[in-house]
Amino acid sequence: MKKILVLNGPNLNLLGKREPEIYGHQTFEMYFEELKAAFSEAELHYFQSNSEGALIDKIHEIGFDFDGIVINAGAYTHTSVAIADALSAVTSPAIEVHISNIHAREKFRHHSYLTSRCRGMIAGLGLKGYELAVRSLLS
Amino acid sequence: MKKILVLNGPNLNLLGKREPEIYGHQTFEMYFEELKAAFSEAELHYFQSNSEGALIDKIHEIGFDFDGIVINAGAYTHTSVAIADALSAVTSPAIEVHISNIHAREKFRHHSYLTSRCRGMIAGLGLKGYELAVRSLLS
Amino acid sequence: MKKILVLNGPNLNLLGKREPEIYGHQTFEMYFEELKAAFSEAELHYFQSNSEGALIDKIHEIGFDFDGIVINAGAYTHTSVAIADALSAVTSPAIEVHISNIHAREKFRHHSYLTSRCRGMIAGLGLKGYELAVRSLLS
Amino acid sequence: MKKILVLNGPNLNLLGKREPEIYGHQTFEMYFEELKAAFSEAELHYFQSNSEGALIDKIHEIGFDFDGIVINAGAYTHTSVAIADALSAVTSPAIEVHISNIHAREKFRHHSYLTSRCRGMIAGLGLKGYELAVRSLLS
Amino acid sequence: MKKILVLNGPNLNLLGKREPEIYGHQTFEMYFEELKAAFSEAELHYFQSNSEGALIDKIHEIGFDFDGIVINAGAYTHTSVAIADALSAVTSPAIEVHISNIHAREKFRHHSYLTSRCRGMIAGLGLKGYELAVRSLLS
Amino acid sequence: MKKILVLNGPNLNLLGKREPEIYGHQTFEMYFEELKAAFSEAELHYFQSNSEGALIDKIHEIGFDFDGIVINAGAYTHTSVAIADALSAVTSPAIEVHISNIHAREKFRHHSYLTSRCRGMIAGLGLKGYELAVRSLLS
Amino acid sequence: MKKILVLNGPNLNLLGKREPEIYGHQTFEMYFEELKAAFSEAELHYFQSNSEGALIDKIHEIGFDFDGIVINAGAYTHTSVAIADALSAVTSPAIEVHISNIHAREKFRHHSYLTSRCRGMIAGLGLKGYELAVRSLLS
Amino acid sequence: MKKILVLNGPNLNLLGKREPEIYGHQTFEMYFEELKAAFSEAELHYFQSNSEGALIDKIHEIGFDFDGIVINAGAYTHTSVAIADALSAVTSPAIEVHISNIHAREKFRHHSYLTSRCRGMIAGLGLKGYELAVRSLLS
Amino acid sequence: MKKILVLNGPNLNLLGKREPEIYGHQTFEMYFEELKAAFSEAELHYFQSNSEGALIDKIHEIGFDFDGIVINAGAYTHTSVAIADALSAVTSPAIEVHISNIHAREKFRHHSYLTSRCRGMIAGLGLKGYELAVRSLLS
Amino acid sequence: MKKILVLNGPNLNLLGKREPEIYGHQTFEMYFEELKAAFSEAELHYFQSNSEGALIDKIHEIGFDFDGIVINAGAYTHTSVAIADALSAVTSPAIEVHISNIHAREKFRHHSYLTSRCRGMIAGLGLKGYELAVRSLLS
Amino acid sequence: MKKILVLNGPNLNLLGKREPEIYGHQTFEMYFEELKAAFSEAELHYFQSNSEGALIDKIHEIGFDFDGIVINAGAYTHTSVAIADALSAVTSPAIEVHISNIHAREKFRHHSYLTSRCRGMIAGLGLKGYELAVRSLLS
Amino acid sequence: MKKILVLNGPNLNLLGKREPEIYGHQTFEMYFEELKAAFSEAELHYFQSNSEGALIDKIHEIGFDFDGIVINAGAYTHTSVAIADALSAVTSPAIEVHISNIHAREKFRHHSYLTSRCRGMIAGLGLKGYELAVRSLLS
Repeated sequence: MKKILVLNGPNLNLLGKREPEIYGHQTFEMYFEELKAAFSEAELHYFQSNSEGALIDKIHEIGFDFDGIVINAGAYTHTSVAIADALSAVTSPAIEVHISNIHAREKFRHHSYLTSRCRGMIAGLGLKGYELAVRSLLS
Repeated sequence: MKKILVLNGPNLNLLGKREPEIYGHQTFEMYFEELKAAFSEAELHYFQSNSEGALIDKIHEIGFDFDGIVINAGAYTHTSVAIADALSAVTSPAIEVHISNIHAREKFRHHSYLTSRCRGMIAGLGLKGYELAVRSLLS
Repeated sequence: MKKILVLNGPNLNLLGKREPEIYGHQTFEMYFEELKAAFSEAELHYFQSNSEGALIDKIHEIGFDFDGIVINAGAYTHTSVAIADALSAVTSPAIEVHISNIHAREKFRHHSYLTSRCRGMIAGLGLKGYELAVRSLLS
Repeated sequence: MKKILVLNGPNLNLLGKREPEIYGHQTFEMYFEELKAAFSEAELHYFQSNSEGALIDKIHEIGFDFDGIVINAGAYTHTSVAIADALSAVTSPAIEVHISNIHAREKFRHHSYLTSRCRGMIAGLGLKGYELAVRSLLS
Repeated sequence: MKKILVLNGPNLNLLGKREPEIYGHQTFEMYFEELKAAFSEAELHYFQSNSEGALIDKIHEIGFDFDGIVINAGAYTHTSVAIADALSAVTSPAIEVHISNIHAREKFRHHSYLTSRCRGMIAGLGLKGYELAVRSLLS
Repeated sequence: MKKILVLNGPNLNLLGKREPEIYGHQTFEMYFEELKAAFSEAELHYFQSNSEGALIDKIHEIGFDFDGIVINAGAYTHTSVAIADALSAVTSPAIEVHISNIHAREKFRHHSYLTSRCRGMIAGLGLKGYELAVRSLLS
Repeated sequence: MKKILVLNGPNLNLLGKREPEIYGHQTFEMYFEELKAAFSEAELHYFQSNSEGALIDKIHEIGFDFDGIVINAGAYTHTSVAIADALSAVTSPAIEVHISNIHAREKFRHHSYLTSRCRGMIAGLGLKGYELAVRSLLS
Repeated sequence: MKKILVLNGPNLNLLGKREPEIYGHQTFEMYFEELKAAFSEAELHYFQSNSEGALIDKIHEIGFDFDGIVINAGAYTHTSVAIADALSAVTSPAIEVHISNIHAREKFRHHSYLTSRCRGMIAGLGLKGYELAVRSLLS
Repeated sequence: MKKILVLNGPNLNLLGKREPEIYGHQTFEMYFEELKAAFSEAELHYFQSNSEGALIDKIHEIGFDFDGIVINAGAYTHTSVAIADALSAVTSPAIEVHISNIHAREKFRHHSYLTSRCRGMIAGLGLKGYELAVRSLLS
Repeated sequence: MKKILVLNGPNLNLLGKREPEIYGHQTFEMYFEELKAAFSEAELHYFQSNSEGALIDKIHEIGFDFDGIVINAGAYTHTSVAIADALSAVTSPAIEVHISNIHAREKFRHHSYLTSRCRGMIAGLGLKGYELAVRSLLS
Repeated sequence: MKKILVLNGPNLNLLGKREPEIYGHQTFEMYFEELKAAFSEAELHYFQSNSEGALIDKIHEIGFDFDGIVINAGAYTHTSVAIADALSAVTSPAIEVHISNIHAREKFRHHSYLTSRCRGMIAGLGLKGYELAVRSLLS
Repeated sequence: MKKILVLNGPNLNLLGKREPEIYGHQTFEMYFEELKAAFSEAELHYFQSNSEGALIDKIHEIGFDFDGIVINAGAYTHTSVAIADALSAVTSPAIEVHISNIHAREKFRHHSYLTSRCRGMIAGLGLKGYELAVRSLLS
């Protein structure tokens, strides 16, 4: 069975806790349960950290064994050469996901160090983007 | 039944004709037949042109009636403010698709005038990107 | 009798069709009838196209005979060296018009390739700008 | 009766005195008499200063009472955030006028701090630009 | 008794006069009375001008005698090398104050010529910033 | 009783240990005791870390409950989009403090990702800046 | 017999019509007759359009059969990524020609999107450049 | 007898008053007496102001009659387009003088708006520069 | 006996594990054993982390006692002001080492925040660079 | 008989010596013999130097007598204002030649100081470019 | 007796030879004779070369003995860090001279590597500038 | 026996002559004698020139025979594409050395044209850097 890691970066742990009247009470953990249910043919794992180093450690740990990484590095997308290097060093293919349309936000969010190290990128399609990324990795 | 337009810009008509030993003999028209077959619940239309003006005309023509636009504007992605304005002016939501990972190519391909006018963007996932975009528009 | 061409670029054909509850139901064609009525001493012509090439063709066609061109090139204002060259090549004087204040919008709209090829520019005064431009060409 | 201020910035007091064989012997004061005569339905006032501070003082003085400001800030157009702020602070609408086509001159004249604070801009149409600006404010 | 000058630049004289329903009817002069009352141990002076030259004259006049300058140069913050030079030339220490958070506004407001000539800067804390600046100069 | 967090970023733990003949032997912990003594009406907490992730974790932990954050993110001020995003996500208001005048140092220290997410900024006033920031949050 | 396409972009159709007292009455069509006569060993074709899309269509039409393309894309040289992509996609080798020395003109004419997709470039040698380009393609 | 104006801008009135133990007690007025004595064949006038507007007024007042202007615009050198325009408008030739070597100071002092409007520039030669400038204007 | 710390940043722990058919099976730990053997006159220590904060903590821990630091900060070289500040704050001299020639790689790798805080830099000489750096620190 | 100088800059003397298995054993001197043979109607001279000064000396020596200069300044193309000035100073017309397509190489090779001083430029056509340049100078 | 070197860079040897109907037949050597005559109290030497290396050699040769250097490095002004370093290394003070106003010419002539290494600069005053520079060095 | 060339660029001939009270009386020639003594297993050669062309000539002369080049191109490091090209053209591997830490000096010294053509770079380690470079070439 194929193994996929969903890897979330800083501040994404606040989903469901931050402004619940707007974003709802669903945490990413709850959404991840739905995601796992939707892909019975694969083994999905989830990891989140606010620490750049911990994200790199995780990529090293699974990046030679897993069949794919779906990464939303949050703000580290725009500042972390080290995470980009980690993705280059391992053999698992990665797809970058952003919940919002980062190109419609502040200018410093238009550049991603990760994109050129990933197979592709999905942005602006909400949580749906994670599902599409998993689907693409499995196809 | 929902109506979706798949809109391709310059040079995308060469798929299947250009270096067939590499890219195969499948033209976009053939792929589009598969795509239509995969989404029996929607009405998919296809239009391609090498002319910026013709692409804008098409967006005007269907952009107040259709339920979504999947647009791969090819090289106009990086140079056409006019197509971006057309997408802003109409009411149909749009998703931008790129077959290759434009961020891993020349620097002038890193900027897209369209992205901020679209709901989201999918890049680097090959022809699969069109399917994911349609799926997202229908969900 | 002096001949003046009013030349509109991409997306300006949507006036009156786009968000009529805001912009009203008046199309540019209707406004143009008023404009012609206001200048009985001149012969006013109107042409609109979403195609850069068609706009250039038109400038070539009338640019050695007409007494003036009022041009609102829309988004091509910011990207078309070719239209600017066409205005340089012909002998009719031109005045650039923008309905909205382009300097209060996105940064890429602050630069116009056309301005230095035109006698002058009027921006931000709404449809009134066309009338002022014609008046200036006739004076 | 509507009240309009025509406000001229640095060096514009030299009109008629500077190179009269080229620019003629007509001073701005003379032209202003013609302007007043052309708009009998409005009360036109004129003020000129070479001092940034004096221009701001004037904007403060009339900017809550007058029905419009026609401003040609001369070189301060390109350097004065303070005049731009003054125009933002008051309630009278303003239109920016430039006698010459500033976009066909040195690069540092292409940017105006004032434009985004004004309703619109007229450039390159000579002294005629003042008349068109007044006409627009009265309409 | 220590002497402190509070020095305000262009447009700050409009406080209390501009949009009173929002900013209230309190002028800076009124606020300054409160400020003087709060610091009985010091002699506070106030000067405001819309003229760059007058602000420099004032800095020269008191800058070798007073114990401190609290300066809010308004828009001159971003454009005046001359005021910055004046602050360098005199011996009184200065603290820069901005009522609003200038880094959350337009990009040209992010740079201050004054900051490197001042002991420090306080921004975004409203009129309270003046009090904190005086407190810091007296400590 | 109001709760305020004083949050220090990288290298600020060296105060009192680094060049004591210049900076003195007072550590930040000692200073913090004085600060707490000065504000008996509030509950002050202190946290320092050299790790970007740990700072974000702390902001998440207290940022929905505390009444204010006084943050000196040290070098992360200039590089961390992730800390800025954390401050945006929580509800506690924050004030940015810098001991030295960052605008009088290297050019890369002139930009702060945090400022636009904070209510205000105090720089160059030494340790006094923390006191002024707390005072402002309590007022 | 080798087949060569001479492809001219926008405004080049005005040669011989524009300022004939300076440029003469010879149109490009007349010059092309001379060119054909000079190369009896090859089959020369000519196409001109002011439309970016039409130029791309032409490149697609002949670009897999002809032995070479001599392209003067006029103003599209500086703005068209799409024409550059078309030249990359086809198999016919291309040489870029400019009648004038584009590097001695406005700065935006110094950059060509086409050059890196062409075998070489000839600029500033007048109509002679076309002849030299054909000669090079045939050698 | 030839008439020359020596025109000093902001902060130059502090010479002799600022750090006299370093710069000495000689004011510019004293130096100017020596300068006048050295050029008995010419009539030398002196004017200083901290106000940009007053400097422009002075240039207008004498700029059509005097035989030369020696201008040290101080900090306005780097920010005033208006003074540069005034020098362009009048007929008296001007030479720019800087006491210190402005190119060895902060980067924003490397650019001068005035230089291209002046016959020449002398920098870094101390007060001696004024004498050399007068000598050049008289030769 | 002199004490030297060899400090490696993110992803350098993958040496020997990543593409062993190319880079070999030698890990940095194995190489470090050789290095220690080569310098019997000194005490060499080794620390690696993928976390910016942990690297700073280590610099603080040994930076006042050790006789030198050989630092290869990996990707943090290009993004970490905080590590640079840590090196400035401690007293041990540091030498920067890069295994590959960072100036022959992507543009964002050409800039190092660390270099100006280090005594020197060695790049492109492979693992040999560490040995040369230690040799230089001991000499 | 017309006299033409072929002038080669740095490193071009290595042709035929460098990687002969790839570039062949033909030196530029051998090629030059062929070139002379092809143009019996003209007198061709050849000079090569790795020294910027020697190239300038040569341009001065023949630049008032010869009928043309074919210059390939090698790397000095991108760095030498002095050679550009020499070409401006003399009266012989010059044509710039580059063997390879400099616009398809590193970015710093895209700019040429020489182009605007030359009648034209030929790039990317191999040694053939020298022949075409001579042909153009003689026509 | 004081010794001064007048040092001229590339192309300045063409004075009197280049366009004599405009610049006259006076070579720099002739002018230098006048200069020597004007300063009987000093020993003036002259050296010109088109070679950067020869200019540096000369500066090294006399730069520890002479009392001053008047340098017009021509085009090397804008490109030679090496000449700037040579001036820094020697002990003779230098003054930079330019015959024309380099700030009124092309943009790349606005920057001088030499200025910050020289005591001062004189530009735009013609050959008179050399005399003023010698006068300043002797005073 | 391996042959290594030590190649020094402009101004490095002043070592031992320039400020001997600071840098000592040791010339590079003396140091080179020590260097030769330290590497008895290799044949070391030395060449210095202030001329860019002479340095290139030398690289050509030995660059196909020697086993390595240790190059300190001095100021030409930052300006010479031609020396960089020479290093690319020859087969001997090169290592770049800088005595001082060029990244801690002026900004224009941070960029080196040579680095990407060399195997590696050593900076800031004083004359010791030459020894380390030779050691690396021999290993």
